[in-house]
Amino acid sequence: VLVNGQACEKISSLDRGLLYGDGVFETIAIGDGVPLAWDLHLARLLRGCARLAITGLDTQALAAEAHELCRGGDRGIVKVMVTRGIGQRGYRPEAGVMPTRIVQWHPWPKYPSGHWRDGVNLRWCQTRLAVQPLLAGIKHLNRLEQVLARAEWDEPRIAEGLMCDTRGRVVSGTMSNVFFVADGVLHTPDIRDCGVAGVARARILQWADQERLACRIDDYTPAALQAAKEVFVCNSVIGVWPVRSLDQVCYAPGALAARIMEALFPLARQAALCRL
Amino acid sequence: VLVNGQACEKISSLDRGLLYGDGVFETIAIGDGVPLAWDLHLARLLRGCARLAITGLDTQALAAEAHELCRGGDRGIVKVMVTRGIGQRGYRPEAGVMPTRIVQWHPWPKYPSGHWRDGVNLRWCQTRLAVQPLLAGIKHLNRLEQVLARAEWDEPRIAEGLMCDTRGRVVSGTMSNVFFVADGVLHTPDIRDCGVAGVARARILQWADQERLACRIDDYTPAALQAAKEVFVCNSVIGVWPVRSLDQVCYAPGALAARIMEALFPLARQAALCRL
Repeated sequence: VLVNGQACEKISSLDRGLLYGDGVFETIAIGDGVPLAWDLHLARLLRGCARLAITGLDTQALAAEAHELCRGGDRGIVKVMVTRGIGQRGYRPEAGVMPTRIVQWHPWPKYPSGHWRDGVNLRWCQTRLAVQPLLAGIKHLNRLEQVLARAEWDEPRIAEGLMCDTRGRVVSGTMSNVFFVADGVLHTPDIRDCGVAGVARARILQWADQERLACRIDDYTPAALQAAKEVFVCNSVIGVWPVRSLDQVCYAPGALAARIMEALFPLARQAALCRL
Repeated sequence: VLVNGQACEKISSLDRGLLYGDGVFETIAIGDGVPLAWDLHLARLLRGCARLAITGLDTQALAAEAHELCRGGDRGIVKVMVTRGIGQRGYRPEAGVMPTRIVQWHPWPKYPSGHWRDGVNLRWCQTRLAVQPLLAGIKHLNRLEQVLARAEWDEPRIAEGLMCDTRGRVVSGTMSNVFFVADGVLHTPDIRDCGVAGVARARILQWADQERLACRIDDYTPAALQAAKEVFVCNSVIGVWPVRSLDQVCYAPGALAARIMEALFPLARQAALCRL
């Protein structure tokens, strides 16, 4: 772990990242010793900082630290956090405080290769996402809703849970964005009111545009997903997981998920070909 | 600062308090070398832990640590944080992880004595509180809404900002609960959908009940506060601040705020009598 460039596992207990969740983070897959899609992750991190008015981040130092931690390891995850830094007690952000940079290396998670090859089982979560446009889209450190949702199940056969917002619209998985195919159109929920604007989601939308696939970003009910022909979830680490079931509803293996894996997520494709 | 009983200012950067805001806190006034209303603060902290399913907290150790830090100092603040502890990457709370206890001493904040004696100026915040019944009432570490609201103003003459939820109902101040008097009844907003169930708020409601004052907990629009005869804000550190203005609306000095200060918050009363 690097904290402000120093090899150090600890941070101040007066850091606003701890006190208020006052910061943002990125979880980035490492391939061939470099953080993958670094520019997209950095761009979202900076959008988050701008939204929270966290200023003075040394992005060059951050990039150097992330790349340093990736070097040597062929596979893994680098997690980058930026907090508003150490402040006085009280919610008010002080001027002139330097943000804290935290860069952590984590081992590659041990998901079964069947998750990529045969698809995953999903469930609906009871925990709803609150509607908060001011925080929607960015990957901030206030993640209790995801923690509560992920605590709803324990069965290893369920790989992910889907969440609706408090108005009943589908938003995303606890740690992924969701796409579905219906009537020949690729759909994904709008995340203007809550949810994270995933880097994998953005890459898939851009690819679909290049491939001239019909795409729609809109509000959807759970029924729309249940009636879909194909469903998949995505994030920067897993790439794409086809969905084989969502509670009682089953789906056929998806052709589009496989195409996207091949086009955009070589690590996901490798994992799918693996015999484990 | 004590972290798990050790004199240490730092915590692990793998602590879920930092990663996800996965924890709760209390901010407690110190009087005569002891944390005031300790039992009420501990009870709310434990309610928060129960809601988040944070188990295994050593409450005796926590109480001993908080009292140890208060001893000797006559005036100040003790801040207590409990997080779910250090975990693997991922939102899922693991079983068997010990919570992290963090106890910090802070100096008494330098508010002008006029805040208590003559009242404070308030403003309405643009930042809305999201409706999330699962997290309402408890004092968790996901506080970005309060940070954004407090960042809305810089003028020292404004002591606090009031916040509405996304449905337009008044909830609280950024760091306080709010009460108002109208038609001879003491009113305070319901906090079942968002906001914190303040310890000072609970003490005032209990006192009002003992004094057989007519009380109502309900949903209110900003207009209801603007038409009120008396308005005051409260928390465990400040006790009670009478409100003299709320944006363009002015209020006469409140008789009830003074009575509550005298009955419940001797530190607030001392501050009001101070010449500073």
